[in-house]
Amino acid sequence: MLKKYLPILTWGPTYGRSELTSDLIAAVIVTIMLIPQSLAYALLAGLPPEMGLYASMAPLVAYAVFGTARALAVGPVAVASLMTAAAVGKLAQQGTPEYIGAAIALALISGLLLIAMGALRLGFLANFLSHPVISGFITASGLLIAMSQLGHILGIKAGGENLYEMTTALVARLGEINPWTTLIGTGAIAFLYWARLRLKRVLIARGVAPRIADLAAKVGPVAAIVASTGAVWAFGLEQSGVAIVGAIPNALPSPTLPPLDLELWAQIAVPALLISVVGYVETISVAQTFAARKRQRIDPDQELIALGFSNVGASVSGGFPVTGGFSRSVVNFDAGAETPAAGAFTAVGIALATVFLTPFLYYLPKATLAATIIVAVLSLVDFRTLRHTWTYSKADFTAIAATILLTLLQGVEAGLIAGVGLSIALHLYRTSRPHVAIMGQVPGTEHFRNINRHDVVTDPEIISMRIDESLYFPNARFLEDQVNAAVAANPQAKHLILVCPAINSIDASALESLEAINHRLAEGGVTFHLSEVKGPVMDKLQRVHFLDELTGQVHLTQFDAVASINPELARATLAARRLQPRQPAA
Amino acid sequence: MLKKYLPILTWGPTYGRSELTSDLIAAVIVTIMLIPQSLAYALLAGLPPEMGLYASMAPLVAYAVFGTARALAVGPVAVASLMTAAAVGKLAQQGTPEYIGAAIALALISGLLLIAMGALRLGFLANFLSHPVISGFITASGLLIAMSQLGHILGIKAGGENLYEMTTALVARLGEINPWTTLIGTGAIAFLYWARLRLKRVLIARGVAPRIADLAAKVGPVAAIVASTGAVWAFGLEQSGVAIVGAIPNALPSPTLPPLDLELWAQIAVPALLISVVGYVETISVAQTFAARKRQRIDPDQELIALGFSNVGASVSGGFPVTGGFSRSVVNFDAGAETPAAGAFTAVGIALATVFLTPFLYYLPKATLAATIIVAVLSLVDFRTLRHTWTYSKADFTAIAATILLTLLQGVEAGLIAGVGLSIALHLYRTSRPHVAIMGQVPGTEHFRNINRHDVVTDPEIISMRIDESLYFPNARFLEDQVNAAVAANPQAKHLILVCPAINSIDASALESLEAINHRLAEGGVTFHLSEVKGPVMDKLQRVHFLDELTGQVHLTQFDAVASINPELARATLAARRLQPRQPAA
Repeated sequence: MLKKYLPILTWGPTYGRSELTSDLIAAVIVTIMLIPQSLAYALLAGLPPEMGLYASMAPLVAYAVFGTARALAVGPVAVASLMTAAAVGKLAQQGTPEYIGAAIALALISGLLLIAMGALRLGFLANFLSHPVISGFITASGLLIAMSQLGHILGIKAGGENLYEMTTALVARLGEINPWTTLIGTGAIAFLYWARLRLKRVLIARGVAPRIADLAAKVGPVAAIVASTGAVWAFGLEQSGVAIVGAIPNALPSPTLPPLDLELWAQIAVPALLISVVGYVETISVAQTFAARKRQRIDPDQELIALGFSNVGASVSGGFPVTGGFSRSVVNFDAGAETPAAGAFTAVGIALATVFLTPFLYYLPKATLAATIIVAVLSLVDFRTLRHTWTYSKADFTAIAATILLTLLQGVEAGLIAGVGLSIALHLYRTSRPHVAIMGQVPGTEHFRNINRHDVVTDPEIISMRIDESLYFPNARFLEDQVNAAVAANPQAKHLILVCPAINSIDASALESLEAINHRLAEGGVTFHLSEVKGPVMDKLQRVHFLDELTGQVHLTQFDAVASINPELARATLAARRLQPRQPAA
Repeated sequence: MLKKYLPILTWGPTYGRSELTSDLIAAVIVTIMLIPQSLAYALLAGLPPEMGLYASMAPLVAYAVFGTARALAVGPVAVASLMTAAAVGKLAQQGTPEYIGAAIALALISGLLLIAMGALRLGFLANFLSHPVISGFITASGLLIAMSQLGHILGIKAGGENLYEMTTALVARLGEINPWTTLIGTGAIAFLYWARLRLKRVLIARGVAPRIADLAAKVGPVAAIVASTGAVWAFGLEQSGVAIVGAIPNALPSPTLPPLDLELWAQIAVPALLISVVGYVETISVAQTFAARKRQRIDPDQELIALGFSNVGASVSGGFPVTGGFSRSVVNFDAGAETPAAGAFTAVGIALATVFLTPFLYYLPKATLAATIIVAVLSLVDFRTLRHTWTYSKADFTAIAATILLTLLQGVEAGLIAGVGLSIALHLYRTSRPHVAIMGQVPGTEHFRNINRHDVVTDPEIISMRIDESLYFPNARFLEDQVNAAVAANPQAKHLILVCPAINSIDASALESLEAINHRLAEGGVTFHLSEVKGPVMDKLQRVHFLDELTGQVHLTQFDAVASINPELARATLAARRLQPRQPAA
């Protein structure tokens, strides 16, 4: 029981020297990668750089204690940082203590919500973010994030929560472009793209081992940091208007209590829920991917608790909302992390960096950080899924397209809520008009198939109608209409068999409709039968009077149903072409 | 085409003397019944009595032109009047011109929404009011309406939008009870209950024909009106504080333009939509009931248009929202109405009453009207459905109970919205964790059934898993979990067959999950098959690469699937107990 809630008790006792070595190596590499990322995502969230470092310590330790995924690395990530900026930006002015306090409170509430969801085993709620919605949301967020960093690249102050606001803010200040900043920013973007696309191959060509070359390519951003920081320091570019990170307090975070302001908490509850769910979906996808590769199992509800404590940890150490990040988890996994202890060691690495390295980051230009963000998030933008989905399903395409458009035009919260709402609405609409097939018997078999798709035998006195959906309130009246229409179109009909293998449940509204159908068919001299009713559906029908009032029978199979009404035809059809190869010898 | 939108063109040309006679008789009886009802529902809506009469003229003519149901009688009804009071009460003080204007605007917007829904063929939206929600809402509304009239019965001013507000308002003023009003009110209730329960039998015992006795019992309220009005006039009770209807303008309504105030329109759009949908559901249920009895068909989308024009008619003639009423339609039908012309004649009757009868209604006590309302609405209260639904489905019971409680405690709009939201949420929750069965072959047949419910034959190397739900985003990850668990529990398994007769659709999220399952099973050396995939599902799968990547096959039947993997076992099982009576002779 305790092991379930404290997975560290599972792997901790057998932790040995080999795990320690692997985890330490992974931690060093992830630390190098995390330092610029932490600063960059703090910048993206509109927060002071040290908060990015703070969010990369306590959460990693908390995840090491509570997490079930071995290679997952938590910390500030791009999408959650954008969502933080959007949520907090509505409540306070960037740069004020209120803004910082709200971000800290957001992490706390987000963490408490996640822990509560985990304790109540509500992990399934994350399923309501359908794949199209998540995919569209990530793509649009990537574009918004890239757009939000353009100001830093050009050296002008811009802002805004959606594409329109961002564009107008940028265009209005185009005259204030700083050439040195622009040079550093575009140079960094060019270098980072080169590193991403070519560096690995160059290194391998020079004889570096592929695995090392791969990791080196992934920590490439550090070179851009070093070079641009050096350039600013050497040429005094900060005096030519190049924005720099400036003084970062080189102290560890002191325990913080988020503002105990109930009104504030109420205002950020919805954004906190959205950040929690989006962060959880990202975390669980990353965790499942790596778990599958090593045949390990993760516990989705425990992951909620782990991510929750990570966020509480972020909050009480002065950080902002954190999530399991894909790119850093890839690095962690590839660098050989064996257990979540690698995360704890990374936290130590970040702590050392905070104390000893921050003075060297004084001249780090914000444009370089913006460049690392842009290069990272543009890889999230994925328009291919849009095309694939168009081929597969117009409804899912609509959900993606609406999520992308609304996120771009209205902001992250509106986009996400509209996406979820639209997915549900499209599902309800689809199931409210299900596919209905009139069926006949396939000669030589006991099988019944759609008369429009197969050569089948039918009896004009029998209508066999299969409805391809559970019966529930949105389609209850549709069913009545379909039955009325079928009977009106077949004046010879004396029996109507509802073929039910696709009916997984019947709710109270649909039961009422079945009763009405039974009653109306009886008045018209048509007997109403059911066939192939599933066990659980039958169990429920037996609790009420419907089966007593049913004018016909309930048959185990559709063949039985037809055979009980017109045995000659059913058997003659079964006997036809009996010697087909797939039939067993008599 | 024109006949579709103007059903009067269908029955009008063949309208003859016999229809005229029947319709005229029905109109006279409905008119007598409608006069007190119109006044009473205007009182319930908090509007001057003449508005009830206005709402019983133009709408009936509009319905006669556009409606497809022969015996339906539209006009002010109890639930819509309560909803009108709730909606308008939020915007203006009762008794002010703004209150009246808002009620007129509500009818207009409600009418325009209905016409738009009809033109766009959105009648299916009404299906989202599930039967449990409607039933709970009507019951709770009946209780609220009865409660709202208690003040009139006791002669004290009360108010409030929900049970709590109403109770406290009543209790606070209990000292102001007027004894004469209470006497009239309780006397009227007693008489009306007696008329409802006994009058018909008494009349039949005295030799009156049953059909006449039945109609007489239904217009019984008129006697209470006449007697109590006479009593007030004779004893001058209005001077002892008995509230009376007072002067009603004895003129026909002049054409009214509702206030052209866009802000007002925006504020009442949601209540107007709710009134429209509730009114439509009531109308269509009444219409279908009577159409089925006479083997006539109604057109649900045209009914939206007809009800829409009825409401526009109510608005431009100074009335308030109208609906097809059950009790008056029963009277209309029983009195022999043959065509919607009966409604038009009723409108003429109400017009004559407005001009010639209103002076006689001066002394009509409001307590009598309140008594007619209470007796009418208490018949709407139905707690039996609550018990039936508890037996059949706990989820549907939850929806009813929540709708009743929220309507009583928070008011009509909150109750209705929460009921619809809860119905949808419960459906999503249920389908997010579908029933999953592991299957085996029934000896002597080609059929496969749940191993937990039937004696079946299985092969330890084959897992046949049937999932009883369409695959879509809320259950996509659940499917992955179930497959993982089944494979983990059957280490011998080399094949997993997903049996798909219950899968009516697969959305993009679920397709992604199937791809992940196929990939993971392949890594574990398990082949992934599908069987009994429905035609429409197969069509969609063929558009993408999934079937090319599938490690196994897609089989027409589950028997084919197993027979292709282990032909010996499948055929031996089929041959077992072959001579059962229900098998055809070889």
